[in-house]
Amino acid sequence: MNRDSLEMRSTVRADGTLRLELATVHLPEPGPGEVLVQVEAAPINPSDLGLMFGPADMDSLRVEGQALTARIPDRAMPALKARIDQPLPIGNEGAGTVVAAGPDRQDLIGKRVAMLGGAMYASLRLIAVKDCMVLPDSASSEQGAALFVNPLTALGFVETMRAEGHKAIVHAPAASNLGQMLVRICMADGIGLVNIVRSKEQAAMLRDLGAVHVADSSTDSFRDDLTEAIAATGATLCFDAIGGGETTSIVLNAMEAVAMRSMTSYDRYGSAVMKQGYIYGALDTGPSILRRGFGFSWSVGGWLLFHALQRLDPATVDRMRQRVLAEMTTTFASHYTARITLEQALQPDTVAAYVRKSTGAKFLLTPQKP
Amino acid sequence: MNRDSLEMRSTVRADGTLRLELATVHLPEPGPGEVLVQVEAAPINPSDLGLMFGPADMDSLRVEGQALTARIPDRAMPALKARIDQPLPIGNEGAGTVVAAGPDRQDLIGKRVAMLGGAMYASLRLIAVKDCMVLPDSASSEQGAALFVNPLTALGFVETMRAEGHKAIVHAPAASNLGQMLVRICMADGIGLVNIVRSKEQAAMLRDLGAVHVADSSTDSFRDDLTEAIAATGATLCFDAIGGGETTSIVLNAMEAVAMRSMTSYDRYGSAVMKQGYIYGALDTGPSILRRGFGFSWSVGGWLLFHALQRLDPATVDRMRQRVLAEMTTTFASHYTARITLEQALQPDTVAAYVRKSTGAKFLLTPQKP
Repeated sequence: MNRDSLEMRSTVRADGTLRLELATVHLPEPGPGEVLVQVEAAPINPSDLGLMFGPADMDSLRVEGQALTARIPDRAMPALKARIDQPLPIGNEGAGTVVAAGPDRQDLIGKRVAMLGGAMYASLRLIAVKDCMVLPDSASSEQGAALFVNPLTALGFVETMRAEGHKAIVHAPAASNLGQMLVRICMADGIGLVNIVRSKEQAAMLRDLGAVHVADSSTDSFRDDLTEAIAATGATLCFDAIGGGETTSIVLNAMEAVAMRSMTSYDRYGSAVMKQGYIYGALDTGPSILRRGFGFSWSVGGWLLFHALQRLDPATVDRMRQRVLAEMTTTFASHYTARITLEQALQPDTVAAYVRKSTGAKFLLTPQKP
Repeated sequence: MNRDSLEMRSTVRADGTLRLELATVHLPEPGPGEVLVQVEAAPINPSDLGLMFGPADMDSLRVEGQALTARIPDRAMPALKARIDQPLPIGNEGAGTVVAAGPDRQDLIGKRVAMLGGAMYASLRLIAVKDCMVLPDSASSEQGAALFVNPLTALGFVETMRAEGHKAIVHAPAASNLGQMLVRICMADGIGLVNIVRSKEQAAMLRDLGAVHVADSSTDSFRDDLTEAIAATGATLCFDAIGGGETTSIVLNAMEAVAMRSMTSYDRYGSAVMKQGYIYGALDTGPSILRRGFGFSWSVGGWLLFHALQRLDPATVDRMRQRVLAEMTTTFASHYTARITLEQALQPDTVAAYVRKSTGAKFLLTPQKP
């Protein structure tokens, strides 16, 4: 049994160079409770790009021998102090076939599993069985590659809504794989959802999926459409993966405009309706601008899947995972526009394509394909 | 007994005119549980200015007969819809002498009381006894005029800190009357406090009061000083009355820099230390700019005294009020730079002076002075 894995690593050096390369790692035999998995599919999520390239200047990308390098702006270096000279493995999630197992889990050999836990951009992954979900025999690795981050995030939004007493959700940008899952979940569960998209095509795609409320920021009627959709659903909670710019601010102001419709007297402090915005991504790494026309009953905060899972009770999390598995080819199906190998992932042209983060473009790493 | 009161009123008209004037109102006799108070002192707080002038263009102020008028920009009118054509009385708090009382509270006649409840910019105020605090005989109305908004806000910060599990506070701008109270409270209670000020003079004044940590935003070492003060106190909570601009963002980034010092491994999502910013004023009504270099464990929200008091248990609120009364001439003493009559409050030159909101300038309305 060959246990040499080709693993993607990202290293930041003190001189401000970022280095991305493939390293060969010899993995130990799986111990009790562990399996060795041949990684067959791993999605490139925005959160993976954060670790791969950090705040590097993408115009400075160059090939250096077998590696890819880029420069990191000086002002970004202080935040990276803790990762200097550490070759960090990449890839939050993936799926593949169990090729070896600890003495207690020989039953899993030959099974396909979905995995969460980092270091998935590799040919082999040694992993604890508890961090895997065993896939049905009918499922492909591609179908199992993205069953954690997006599905649990979408379900996490709904659980956060319930836990914090809101009744509907605004989501931006809503045409992503995650956004499409959220549309399906909210339809199935009867939850009001306001989808913010950035083009007519995205709006049409979501409506085809069954989305009722779509507000297209590329149109003149965007703010009116958004306000009416918020009025129709009663949404007081927003999840925003754009982060920079005014998206969350526009949504909170629209929520306040709706809340003011039912106020019977003037209050200089605005409505008493609590409006919550969560920023869960940074597609735009620029500053978040809050135009505070929404009174004093508001909160904007960071939202992170891992923190949310820790706050939920284990039974809820287990229920979420069971639902993902049961609906993996329907609610939680992801779609990819390109499949690339580990080597291709280091080619500047390919990098330029997958870092673009445009909604609708989604890359899948397939380490076993030639 | 003359029960005609001269009352300040602010009216917004549909044509975008704001009108501030004095109206004569005939008050009824006090009923059970009520007193009629001759208002002798009422502070002009930033929150009062919000109701008096709203978003009016202060360059357009003019005298029209007995009234003062100003233009409101078109874009600000939608938010004022609920107050159109309503003459709103002004003045959150004040103090004076009881001149008449309901049949059950004749014992209060001649007593000085501090009052909360609006409409204090008037010569007389009919008010429920439950909204008053009876002052000791030795106290002047000036000493009792501002015993609610600033003292309860400062104590509210400390109670919020305790309720949300933080151990120290950052405050900006810290040289205000409220800020000085907070310095005294935190010294007495042994709570870490980081004071952000905007000049050397303010820094010196707070140090004279006994403040340990002062960061002066007018100096080159501001961010370093702020970071070290946060490190020394362990502050993860900030109250910001400026609102617009980057103050809260700078504080959260400094908190994150401190949190990262004790991280043993790199985390692309930043530290797990929860950083909370509250915006409790709008000295700068421009947008709040958040440069999100502080990971995903953060929250920024509005903070309003009345909401905070509702969330606290009544015993805590009662304890807060008792403390204010006991320490009215020490911890909770306010200082005024000018005393003006109701008529003077409508003179354009005087208005220009008190709307400037510069820290250190604080006006007191004295309706009984000639």
